Amino acid sequence: MDFKQQFESYKTRIDNRLKTYFQDECEECKTLIDSVKYSLLAGGKRIRPVLMYAVSDMIGCAEDRTVDVFAAALEMIHSSSLIHDDLPGMDNDSLRRGLPTNHVVYGEGTAIIAGDTLMFKAFEIAADHVYNKSFKKGSVKALWMLGEAAGHKGMTGGQMIDMESIPDKTDLNRLILMNSKKTGALIDFAVKAPIYITETEHIHEKALDVYSKNIGQAFQIKDDILDYESSEEELGKSTSDERNRKATYVTVLGLNTAKEHLYACYDTACSALKPYGEKASFLLALAAYVKDRGK
Amino acid sequence: MDFKQQFESYKTRIDNRLKTYFQDECEECKTLIDSVKYSLLAGGKRIRPVLMYAVSDMIGCAEDRTVDVFAAALEMIHSSSLIHDDLPGMDNDSLRRGLPTNHVVYGEGTAIIAGDTLMFKAFEIAADHVYNKSFKKGSVKALWMLGEAAGHKGMTGGQMIDMESIPDKTDLNRLILMNSKKTGALIDFAVKAPIYITETEHIHEKALDVYSKNIGQAFQIKDDILDYESSEEELGKSTSDERNRKATYVTVLGLNTAKEHLYACYDTACSALKPYGEKASFLLALAAYVKDRGK
Repeated sequence: MDFKQQFESYKTRIDNRLKTYFQDECEECKTLIDSVKYSLLAGGKRIRPVLMYAVSDMIGCAEDRTVDVFAAALEMIHSSSLIHDDLPGMDNDSLRRGLPTNHVVYGEGTAIIAGDTLMFKAFEIAADHVYNKSFKKGSVKALWMLGEAAGHKGMTGGQMIDMESIPDKTDLNRLILMNSKKTGALIDFAVKAPIYITETEHIHEKALDVYSKNIGQAFQIKDDILDYESSEEELGKSTSDERNRKATYVTVLGLNTAKEHLYACYDTACSALKPYGEKASFLLALAAYVKDRGK
Repeated sequence: MDFKQQFESYKTRIDNRLKTYFQDECEECKTLIDSVKYSLLAGGKRIRPVLMYAVSDMIGCAEDRTVDVFAAALEMIHSSSLIHDDLPGMDNDSLRRGLPTNHVVYGEGTAIIAGDTLMFKAFEIAADHVYNKSFKKGSVKALWMLGEAAGHKGMTGGQMIDMESIPDKTDLNRLILMNSKKTGALIDFAVKAPIYITETEHIHEKALDVYSKNIGQAFQIKDDILDYESSEEELGKSTSDERNRKATYVTVLGLNTAKEHLYACYDTACSALKPYGEKASFLLALAAYVKDRGK
């Protein structure tokens, strides 16, 4: 399978898994379930589950079902953060992936609760699986790390730094800190969850840490570059970062230096996986995809 | 110790534990931490942790530390739900416990993220504890049940039913369903967490289920009665349910029938604990407190 086929195969795997949740439940709160599914099943790149599957395959993880459940939990948390990010009280975005945002369709109140519901569901399905199918310390560690990555030490901490950033007073260090938390923490979890689950941190953590940190930063730099280069219509989402005058890699570094940083992150990420040889081919191609993807 | 002293002692225990979290963390997102602490440490009745401690003592649970952590996690989730409930997109309340609500002080964006942060922190501290201190199936079950109670099968499902309720078209069944989810699910978790943790469901679940369902309903009926009887100034929170014309036990049943239901719930809750004799005295007194408490 070439890169594109493998990527699609991973994407289909997570899409199919996500469809198995929120089935025939809570007839009385159908609007909530509709709202949750509207965002959760709206597609998207599924880059976090894809990373988790690819690392699992690279290290020869035999816990497929556990990885599937944590990949779904991770994507639920990511999806919940998008719903809340788009709210009028935050970025006030009306479009995402070419479609009206959750609160535009279902109203603010429902969107707030839909985000909350996805957060709780993530931990419910993961803990259910650990209890009933995979009672191992490594799986509990994955649960712990998921909570930590999503909270103030990770994603929500980064969202706060982002919200308080003053474009003209944001330097590169603060920007890297913000992104390492806001988007980097969940990407780092995606890359490392398989080694928590298999209890093989002593073997793989060093290399995967370098890979995840650099792929995470590359992902965000590229996002900022795409946002900068794209108009609202082309990208299918409002370019709210520019509109709200937030600090991005492009506003802080300028376009050319941002691109240099992107290439440096790509090189470092790839170097870290050299010991894995052929087995790393998908993750190397994924790094190239992050660097080169278009609008 | 009499009831009041014991209640205060439990309350001090959870207050002291909650103060140990969010210390010296995330200098760069200090506003977020301030906002989280503003709501989490604002006092409140702490009825859920008190229930959890009391049941633990009644059944002779030796896992004090585990109960402490899950009590804190539960209170974090409760606190997060209050922050989100008060948002302009939901109940739009500006006062809670006599103080300005979180979004009034910190802004909507920060309040949304503060709620999210508390949700994630709850699972982080619980899973951290299970991994590092209490690696037992019962503790993982408690994690699982916490996620389920907070999500759409429980709290957020109930919030949705509440939001969609039309006062004149809400009957008693729907009201009971709504409250059993919105407030009952977390109360039920509080009562049962000790038997998950100690893996003693086969001994205690039947009696505790009756107690929790009835104390949960009694708690909500009494809340509705107090809301009805109180003015905004007296209760220290806006009486938004009345203002927003939501269905309550008083609007659906009338004041007198609501009181009859309250007394019936109280009687049933107390009967369920008869087999525990003297050991149930605090939980019986707590049921009376729920029934008789003033504004």
